[in-house]
Amino acid sequence: MSDTAAPGKIYTACVLVIGNEILSGRTQDTNLAYIAQGLAQVGVVLKEARVIPDVCDTIAATVNELRTKYDYVFTTGGIGPTHDDITAECVAKAFGVKNVLNPEALAIFQAVFKPEDLNEARLRMCHTPEGAVLIPNPVSRAPGFRKENVYVMAGIPRVMQAMFDGVKPTLKGGPPVLSRTVGCDLPEGAVAQGLSAIQDRYRDLDIGSYPAFRRGGGFWVSLVLRGRDRDRLDLAAGEVAAMVKGLGGNPTLE
Amino acid sequence: MSDTAAPGKIYTACVLVIGNEILSGRTQDTNLAYIAQGLAQVGVVLKEARVIPDVCDTIAATVNELRTKYDYVFTTGGIGPTHDDITAECVAKAFGVKNVLNPEALAIFQAVFKPEDLNEARLRMCHTPEGAVLIPNPVSRAPGFRKENVYVMAGIPRVMQAMFDGVKPTLKGGPPVLSRTVGCDLPEGAVAQGLSAIQDRYRDLDIGSYPAFRRGGGFWVSLVLRGRDRDRLDLAAGEVAAMVKGLGGNPTLE
Repeated sequence: MSDTAAPGKIYTACVLVIGNEILSGRTQDTNLAYIAQGLAQVGVVLKEARVIPDVCDTIAATVNELRTKYDYVFTTGGIGPTHDDITAECVAKAFGVKNVLNPEALAIFQAVFKPEDLNEARLRMCHTPEGAVLIPNPVSRAPGFRKENVYVMAGIPRVMQAMFDGVKPTLKGGPPVLSRTVGCDLPEGAVAQGLSAIQDRYRDLDIGSYPAFRRGGGFWVSLVLRGRDRDRLDLAAGEVAAMVKGLGGNPTLE
Repeated sequence: MSDTAAPGKIYTACVLVIGNEILSGRTQDTNLAYIAQGLAQVGVVLKEARVIPDVCDTIAATVNELRTKYDYVFTTGGIGPTHDDITAECVAKAFGVKNVLNPEALAIFQAVFKPEDLNEARLRMCHTPEGAVLIPNPVSRAPGFRKENVYVMAGIPRVMQAMFDGVKPTLKGGPPVLSRTVGCDLPEGAVAQGLSAIQDRYRDLDIGSYPAFRRGGGFWVSLVLRGRDRDRLDLAAGEVAAMVKGLGGNPTLE
């Protein structure tokens, strides 16, 4: 993946969160937001995310659907030593290859564990689909892997972040996606028409309106502009602020 | 939806998070975990979640795929007054019906806004797909709606929660999904074999192993058992704790 990005091509990605603990509500996922922000930095467009359970047929079918649809697939979760950690074998199944002992992964485990502690469960973690390349884990050693355009990472946020930070510089993307936020103290319904008119004039930007509750009561609206052209963003953000001011509001440029 | 659940039937659901702000990493979604926990309480199995952008064809196609696949689809986001709020018209498109002025929604807005403030943007929020039933919004009034098995709710967590809490008692489900957690101070690799053996004996339960970093350093593992039968859960949790103890650990039953 070291060659350069094709000019003008938009690189796309999907995040696949694997784990019953997310679908049960036990665990609040934070990996999606982390990956999303990182992809924006390297100009890769995150088009979709899915959360699926620890079910092998579901994992394999979903990986196969997504890896043909997007340039990159990033999975999180299911690469530990316990019976519910089945991502590696399911990704192997998706690619129609065997899940085999990876000598590099084995060497990492041999450096960490005494031979008598390198039990069956831990040896399972040394298996990757045939043709996979390891993704280093500087936090707790046990590596993830990449098989073609599918990046298989841990579920524990600190480990996942370290793995993703490692692969991020190797991704082919485009100019970073930048954003400007105009804070707005008027209700969405008051600014909607003006905002829509600005969006119509800036088709190359993505303008969103995100209301939230203020701590002290009432609403606050963040008008967020995203795009790859700094000058166009500044121009449009200026227009949004002027529009809010023209309606009697006090816009803030964040 | 007031009739009773079919005996023995497993009711399934999917959450569909709609919004560019989640895929850009600007906003950390918390609605999925809230809905997941609520569904477990009423015995509905959450099988999948997806996050998709504010793109009408994508929204319509995804709604159509999911509403035939699952008993319930819960969408969040995209029902405000701004140009990026397109969920209602896309759900209408999915069902092949018109997005029409809803007299009940209009009455709610007429009670909130003076006629001169009931502008085009706010009137858009009074439109729902033909045949839709409103979902009340006790927080900020503007309602969501249900069209057949698709529940369309707001993206703002406090509003979404109020909407979901309102519809939750009307859902057909099964016995609540209960859980037991055994805290474990041994590494996953040490307990994996024993845990797998217990899972094999309790096929009706879903046993997961979730490591996390301790604040003070090192790992902590939560061994989580989920199922609908309280006695079986207690029995299995006891076995898990005994297994951890047998390996020299100090299990805690949470």
